[in-house]
Amino acid sequence: MRLGRVVGTVVATRKNDKLTGAKLLLVQPVTADGDPSGIPTLAIDAAQAGVGDTVLVVLEGRAAGSALRRRAAPVDAAIIGVVDGVDTSPDLV
Amino acid sequence: MRLGRVVGTVVATRKNDKLTGAKLLLVQPVTADGDPSGIPTLAIDAAQAGVGDTVLVVLEGRAAGSALRRRAAPVDAAIIGVVDGVDTSPDLV
Amino acid sequence: MRLGRVVGTVVATRKNDKLTGAKLLLVQPVTADGDPSGIPTLAIDAAQAGVGDTVLVVLEGRAAGSALRRRAAPVDAAIIGVVDGVDTSPDLV
Amino acid sequence: MRLGRVVGTVVATRKNDKLTGAKLLLVQPVTADGDPSGIPTLAIDAAQAGVGDTVLVVLEGRAAGSALRRRAAPVDAAIIGVVDGVDTSPDLV
Amino acid sequence: MRLGRVVGTVVATRKNDKLTGAKLLLVQPVTADGDPSGIPTLAIDAAQAGVGDTVLVVLEGRAAGSALRRRAAPVDAAIIGVVDGVDTSPDLV
Repeated sequence: MRLGRVVGTVVATRKNDKLTGAKLLLVQPVTADGDPSGIPTLAIDAAQAGVGDTVLVVLEGRAAGSALRRRAAPVDAAIIGVVDGVDTSPDLV
Repeated sequence: MRLGRVVGTVVATRKNDKLTGAKLLLVQPVTADGDPSGIPTLAIDAAQAGVGDTVLVVLEGRAAGSALRRRAAPVDAAIIGVVDGVDTSPDLV
Repeated sequence: MRLGRVVGTVVATRKNDKLTGAKLLLVQPVTADGDPSGIPTLAIDAAQAGVGDTVLVVLEGRAAGSALRRRAAPVDAAIIGVVDGVDTSPDLV
Repeated sequence: MRLGRVVGTVVATRKNDKLTGAKLLLVQPVTADGDPSGIPTLAIDAAQAGVGDTVLVVLEGRAAGSALRRRAAPVDAAIIGVVDGVDTSPDLV
Repeated sequence: MRLGRVVGTVVATRKNDKLTGAKLLLVQPVTADGDPSGIPTLAIDAAQAGVGDTVLVVLEGRAAGSALRRRAAPVDAAIIGVVDGVDTSPDLV
């Protein structure tokens, strides 16, 4: 899983009908310190996340479908948690 | 999922027979602003997309096969939506 | 899927017995213009491809096993088509 | 699998209910010599690991779910072992 | 699949019990010419490989589990063959 920050939403009227009703968020991966790191991805929301939240993103289809409780959903990423905090050991990072 | 722009089509007469009838598009990944970002990929169309469209691409076989309603299809990427717009928060991107 | 060019063959006498009879080709990923791009990969041939052919490569195990009609095959890449041509829109690439 | 070092923990009160009770650790991938290499990832603990341990990380959902004995868990990485030592051949590395 | 060279072994006494008895090798990915290319990975041996061998590595959990004849094994990489030689076309590489 990766840490990310929700930075936007995507509107797609014409889409595969298995995605009807799913909320699609734009997520910027971030480091433990909250700095951007890597390419933004689109993820289905499975944790009632909103723009500005730091989130836990699962980057795999089987897992993302499972999070949505729709195993056959054509998705490859999902938000599975909203992060309260990251506790790192300064000596180790 | 990634945002992409359809930039071409691929013709392959001699191909695995499980792909018969599938439309194969060349997709350039793009940022939320529409700038190219990353290596072009080939995706099966599952959203009636055309050249020039900004699209939503799923990059995984299970999900791509699911989008095509052929779970055993030998594919690893599919276009699952045509994007109308991306709404980003300037403070966060 | 990626575009690639078949650049060689690999001989492995001692191998997992589920691979017996499979043809293993060395594939260089290429751009739509045919230029090398990325790290060569080894793929099982499922489209009667040969050295020098521009091919369509699926980079996922489930899909590769499906292309071979052996779902339990221990493979993660397969050639699923021989490409006749790529038609790109100059304005978009 | 990759070698990694556990460098922190993540707290996420609001999360997908399939993750209830799972311990989520921040893991920095390392080389055979223990040097950091690559982007930190979040992994579910399936080997009673703790901060500071050098660990064996599996980076795939099916495998991670299997390690947790919950095949439907929405996860894509798990710690599956605590490493005692790496024995490399100086001539080959 | 990728070409690799076995460069070491890993000892992990405390590990997930589904890995009991599995031999874990450190593999350096190499080019067709045998030069190192990319980040070392840990793979389960499914081809009786040893340190110094040039090997064929499958980098996916489903495939790796299949190679081990344990579909539920929590692994994401396996050695599936020992390579005798790579025959490349000089004009094409």
